[in-house]
Amino acid sequence: MSELRKDLITREWVIMSPERARRPSDFQHEQAAQAVITKNHSVCPFCPGNESMTPSEILAFRKKGAKPDSSDWWVRVVPNRFPALMIEGKPNRSEHLIYDRMDGIGAHEVIVETREHGKPLSRLDERQMKEVWWMYKERYTDLCKDSRLKYILIFKNHGKVAGASIEHSHSQLIATPMIPQQVWLKIKGIEQYFDYRDTCAYCDMVRAESGQENRTAAENESFIAIEPYAARHPFETWIIPKRHSHSFIDTKESERDDLTGILKEVLLKLELCLNDPPYNYAIINAPINSGVIGQFHWHLEIIPRLTIAAGFELGTGIYINPVPPEESAKYLREIKTIV
Amino acid sequence: MSELRKDLITREWVIMSPERARRPSDFQHEQAAQAVITKNHSVCPFCPGNESMTPSEILAFRKKGAKPDSSDWWVRVVPNRFPALMIEGKPNRSEHLIYDRMDGIGAHEVIVETREHGKPLSRLDERQMKEVWWMYKERYTDLCKDSRLKYILIFKNHGKVAGASIEHSHSQLIATPMIPQQVWLKIKGIEQYFDYRDTCAYCDMVRAESGQENRTAAENESFIAIEPYAARHPFETWIIPKRHSHSFIDTKESERDDLTGILKEVLLKLELCLNDPPYNYAIINAPINSGVIGQFHWHLEIIPRLTIAAGFELGTGIYINPVPPEESAKYLREIKTIV
Repeated sequence: MSELRKDLITREWVIMSPERARRPSDFQHEQAAQAVITKNHSVCPFCPGNESMTPSEILAFRKKGAKPDSSDWWVRVVPNRFPALMIEGKPNRSEHLIYDRMDGIGAHEVIVETREHGKPLSRLDERQMKEVWWMYKERYTDLCKDSRLKYILIFKNHGKVAGASIEHSHSQLIATPMIPQQVWLKIKGIEQYFDYRDTCAYCDMVRAESGQENRTAAENESFIAIEPYAARHPFETWIIPKRHSHSFIDTKESERDDLTGILKEVLLKLELCLNDPPYNYAIINAPINSGVIGQFHWHLEIIPRLTIAAGFELGTGIYINPVPPEESAKYLREIKTIV
Repeated sequence: MSELRKDLITREWVIMSPERARRPSDFQHEQAAQAVITKNHSVCPFCPGNESMTPSEILAFRKKGAKPDSSDWWVRVVPNRFPALMIEGKPNRSEHLIYDRMDGIGAHEVIVETREHGKPLSRLDERQMKEVWWMYKERYTDLCKDSRLKYILIFKNHGKVAGASIEHSHSQLIATPMIPQQVWLKIKGIEQYFDYRDTCAYCDMVRAESGQENRTAAENESFIAIEPYAARHPFETWIIPKRHSHSFIDTKESERDDLTGILKEVLLKLELCLNDPPYNYAIINAPINSGVIGQFHWHLEIIPRLTIAAGFELGTGIYINPVPPEESAKYLREIKTIV
């Protein structure tokens, strides 16, 4: 069982995960080992036919009547084999000396996005990408019913440098029994902006950037993809819905084509412009089961992993970005994609 | 001239640094290029004899009467050739649409720690290490006189994975014209702890951990090195002074041996235990020229770079640590060093 521990000063929680425990010598050899494993398709646990290599599935999209864990799925969700947080139990919050802790309960799931090993998300056809996002919604909606959970993050690691230990394209979901401090600070920031200007900061950003070529990478009727004014990372891209909404699950039927369309367009532009860079993305929604929604405006943050956060970033939280967003937006706009 | 831009929601500043500008294709080739440069000692700009390869020095420890930029120094400070922030000018804070910005003024210096190429900080003799820290103090004290500056971070990147682009052992100093949001949050956290318990959180931590073997990696009369209870990273180590003090420049003559002694001991233990891991360290002091000191308790954070922060960490700020601090402390205690 993992454990959640709270920093005395920053109030940030940390997940101590002995399920993922390693000896000092493991750190030196694991990258080499990972490279070997992921190159061998026959042992890929996410390939069709290898369903028995994962824990029993949570949900899959497949033909009606077909059996769970059979191989005819097109999107499949399984528990993470080395879960950071476990679904069983209660938080059992308690003190240890001057510190706060709780049991590591929550959820940790893997969403396998395609049957095809080696096909990245950017290359899925739009129908399949819509199925992936439909699965995100299914799992998100289901876990919202669990009142112990206060936040759900759906995210994706693409490429080893971005933390993907398995090559076969997949996303992950982690649900936590508390609101992450970073999300809490965003809620406060949104609230302070609203108090001062009577508007939502993200709505204002959409208004400021929409129709301008300055920092816009792509745009359609319902969404805008911008390189944010204070981008921390080169080619950091945010996809923001133009309609104010606190969660991606409120996306209307009519907006769904625009969402997958702009996501595919942006991922392809990044892939072509930066030669398939490692990247992370995360869907930033409001907390759940907490009564804390406020003026939250959901969005997707995409972060190509091109630079290294070093001592200055770790010590101050201030990032040094060598590529101003106006430049990266220009590069991305100039890339032609067929979508 | 670089530019500082503020995130609308998190209030974090970002440094946009066109001096370090790169085209998309540069990101693919730079690691290979760096490897070539750093392996060739004859072109190392930090080696004695190559002083002309750096901008003119700011300060050096050398025999009295010897000329600046001559080659007989033992610690040398030069401006960073690609400075994130420039010493000339005024912040010129202004608005751009709904956003806040200012000119990128501040300071960015490099402290070359030794004449010997390839000798890491951990292997310097204690006298030389004391000279390095004496130089930190000289530069810190001098820059404190500049009332435009509000925060100074002295930090170190060791190894390419930790962001060191030049192999020859060096530290860096960046001074900013505002208090970093992350430091501000620590100040608030320390204040809130003090309001609640009437004591300093770091003093309480020292009391809770001192003399215990639980999370202590090393200890002497004036300092303790702990693996913090809520360590975000495996083998994250904090060196905390036992005497409450807001800045490392207040370290007393009598405490200085203890400081370099425990630092050398901890760096050697990490090196031996983890086979010379890449790491960052940062000296976390109170802000300057701001009247904001409060109950700040300075300390040194050492972070070996063994794991990758992926989508979950980026989206929530919550870290997953596979090695509980009790375990890493045990590993480190068991390593014998001759100091």
